[in-house]
Amino acid sequence: MRNVYVAGVGMHACGRFLEKSLKELTYKAVWDAIHDSEIDPRAIQAAYVGNAYAGLTTGQESIRGEVALNYCGFEGIAMVNVENACASGSTAFREAWIGVAAGLYDVAIAVGVEKLHCDSTSQSLKALSTSTDIESMGSLGVQFSGLYAMKLKNYMETYDVSVETLAEVVVKNSQSASLNPNAQIRKVLTAEDVLHSKLIADPITLYMVTPISDGAAAAVLCSEQFARKAMKKPKVKIAASSLKTGYFTQAVTKGQTVAERTSQEAYKMAGIGPEDVDLVELHDAIAPGELHMVEELGLCGPGEAPKLIRDKRTSLQGDIPVNPSGGLVSRGHPVGATGLAQIAEAVWQLRNEAGPRQVAGRNGKGPRIALTQNAGGRLENDTAVGVIHIFEKV
Amino acid sequence: MRNVYVAGVGMHACGRFLEKSLKELTYKAVWDAIHDSEIDPRAIQAAYVGNAYAGLTTGQESIRGEVALNYCGFEGIAMVNVENACASGSTAFREAWIGVAAGLYDVAIAVGVEKLHCDSTSQSLKALSTSTDIESMGSLGVQFSGLYAMKLKNYMETYDVSVETLAEVVVKNSQSASLNPNAQIRKVLTAEDVLHSKLIADPITLYMVTPISDGAAAAVLCSEQFARKAMKKPKVKIAASSLKTGYFTQAVTKGQTVAERTSQEAYKMAGIGPEDVDLVELHDAIAPGELHMVEELGLCGPGEAPKLIRDKRTSLQGDIPVNPSGGLVSRGHPVGATGLAQIAEAVWQLRNEAGPRQVAGRNGKGPRIALTQNAGGRLENDTAVGVIHIFEKV
Repeated sequence: MRNVYVAGVGMHACGRFLEKSLKELTYKAVWDAIHDSEIDPRAIQAAYVGNAYAGLTTGQESIRGEVALNYCGFEGIAMVNVENACASGSTAFREAWIGVAAGLYDVAIAVGVEKLHCDSTSQSLKALSTSTDIESMGSLGVQFSGLYAMKLKNYMETYDVSVETLAEVVVKNSQSASLNPNAQIRKVLTAEDVLHSKLIADPITLYMVTPISDGAAAAVLCSEQFARKAMKKPKVKIAASSLKTGYFTQAVTKGQTVAERTSQEAYKMAGIGPEDVDLVELHDAIAPGELHMVEELGLCGPGEAPKLIRDKRTSLQGDIPVNPSGGLVSRGHPVGATGLAQIAEAVWQLRNEAGPRQVAGRNGKGPRIALTQNAGGRLENDTAVGVIHIFEKV
Repeated sequence: MRNVYVAGVGMHACGRFLEKSLKELTYKAVWDAIHDSEIDPRAIQAAYVGNAYAGLTTGQESIRGEVALNYCGFEGIAMVNVENACASGSTAFREAWIGVAAGLYDVAIAVGVEKLHCDSTSQSLKALSTSTDIESMGSLGVQFSGLYAMKLKNYMETYDVSVETLAEVVVKNSQSASLNPNAQIRKVLTAEDVLHSKLIADPITLYMVTPISDGAAAAVLCSEQFARKAMKKPKVKIAASSLKTGYFTQAVTKGQTVAERTSQEAYKMAGIGPEDVDLVELHDAIAPGELHMVEELGLCGPGEAPKLIRDKRTSLQGDIPVNPSGGLVSRGHPVGATGLAQIAEAVWQLRNEAGPRQVAGRNGKGPRIALTQNAGGRLENDTAVGVIHIFEKV
């Protein structure tokens, strides 16, 4: 397989944009990514568009990507819609990577977009509920927050973790998001704010869960040969990609999680270990989920994540910054776009273009390796789709 | 890119299966394909699932493939949902091909499934209408049949084609479908039946349009190396794959159609010409569309298709059989499954396993080359997604 580079990234801010269509959100992300890449848009041969719920929230099903990309001015190229719940964006990115790595395309664009705000909150929530097996789980009333709460309760008892530590994750990420113009929630929160917000599913409070988000993000990918010819900016290489299904919340089943399996494959593919990673964007659909995830990604041992938080090692100024964008809870979680929003952040950080939220890297000379972790859906056997990408500044 | 083979195919018959779920339709196709392949199912590393409307007809959105494949017994492997309207099945097949051709997977499965029959016909039709740009076209009332009728009217006037010739296409395909146990409509029709059925959009009558279909189809793909090791049956190689967007009905714009563009790319990739093709499965969402399509695929010159039909050259016994399965109108058009149903028919024909509808090939010794053409969606600038695959018996 050929080496593939991220030539450019773009994003539409996360938030509530009732007046904007799926097309308009896409337009901003796509053209920002193209301009960022400095690549002639006519060189793009294929587009992969990730979206999870447009059929249910906007009525546009079936050819969502074609409709949005036609609005962006594209025609003639290969277009494929992909869907994998909250992992739709990273899935689109991976499929674009496969196409370029295979040698089929020299340049491809991956797009993620979601318009989750619609006529009513109940309609948005109903769409979100389709990320389970609707026949067996859809009407049982166990929301994702309830499942995360079960996992979290067990974790807190096993490792004697306090609710204050959970709140610290939100506080950290709110500080990062306050420095991110694309973030949905830019208010810096205190532990008190978090703990005194409405209880959703004990111990999870309102400020620990993701908001309902609209948004879009995109990345232009190209082959190494094309990158050498067309790119002036610092180059970001895709060092690894892994996508698998596997155990997710461990609320039902114990065993290796999908994040463990995919990250181990990705580390092997990239020829690195967790100790080489300079920054991580991970899937914190509830903020304290970050505690589980840094352990599952091997960034520390079991039960050690609370200490990482307390020692501020995962803060922007720490040695292993986690969610410098603010993460899903603070930056926002435009479902089909989230995976690509993570990738955009990773690329900006590796290029030292993240402004006031720029991380320094383990050696203080700018980050060299970034890892993104995205996950989506949940079946009755507690499996979900997990996607990991590792990026390397070269 | 590596050579890729179709190791096995499977299908759930097309029809109206109100009592069966998306999972059950998938199960039949997937396990038939695996048994047909003689490959250990544990060797399958990735699954691509094409579906167009389940979110709108069954409520299952977002992780449709994971839900169905979990029911089939799969977990742990990579799973990706793809969607491209009526071309979803062939898109899933192409993505699986790219993954194996890239060297990322040795064995992958492509699945197409649709459950279009639901609570009401109006709900089914509403789902179908999402294969246009719903903002600009969704409520304007120009159905696909109306667009096809415009193109057909123009064609009939240009080449002096009679309605009887249009009916002959349906008659031919109904004869083939009568020999296909997977076909939805197995009654042999006469030209009178067709012409006296209800007028839908002049000159198109009811029997010229596709029924509402449920169904599923699947194909197991593997690398050449894996095929040499694991397969006993005659081998079917994927000689070419092309997917692009481009002009579709030409009701609005004249110019090269997407079928012309993709077939030309595919012929080049396979190193053959239309004169080498032994059989074709093409996208006849209205039966007389076959006339346009055989011309756009280069099987004859402009305006020559009616003579091909009248001379029975595209019949089962002809030198260039078209739609031996019965095509979309007679076999059925389970939207997300159609592209894979075409591919299943191509593989059965190339392996001389098509029973009473088996075609002989140009040299009478069995067909060597098969071509499938699938298309989906339509935007306001008259573009759609077109997909061509060419298969070679080796």
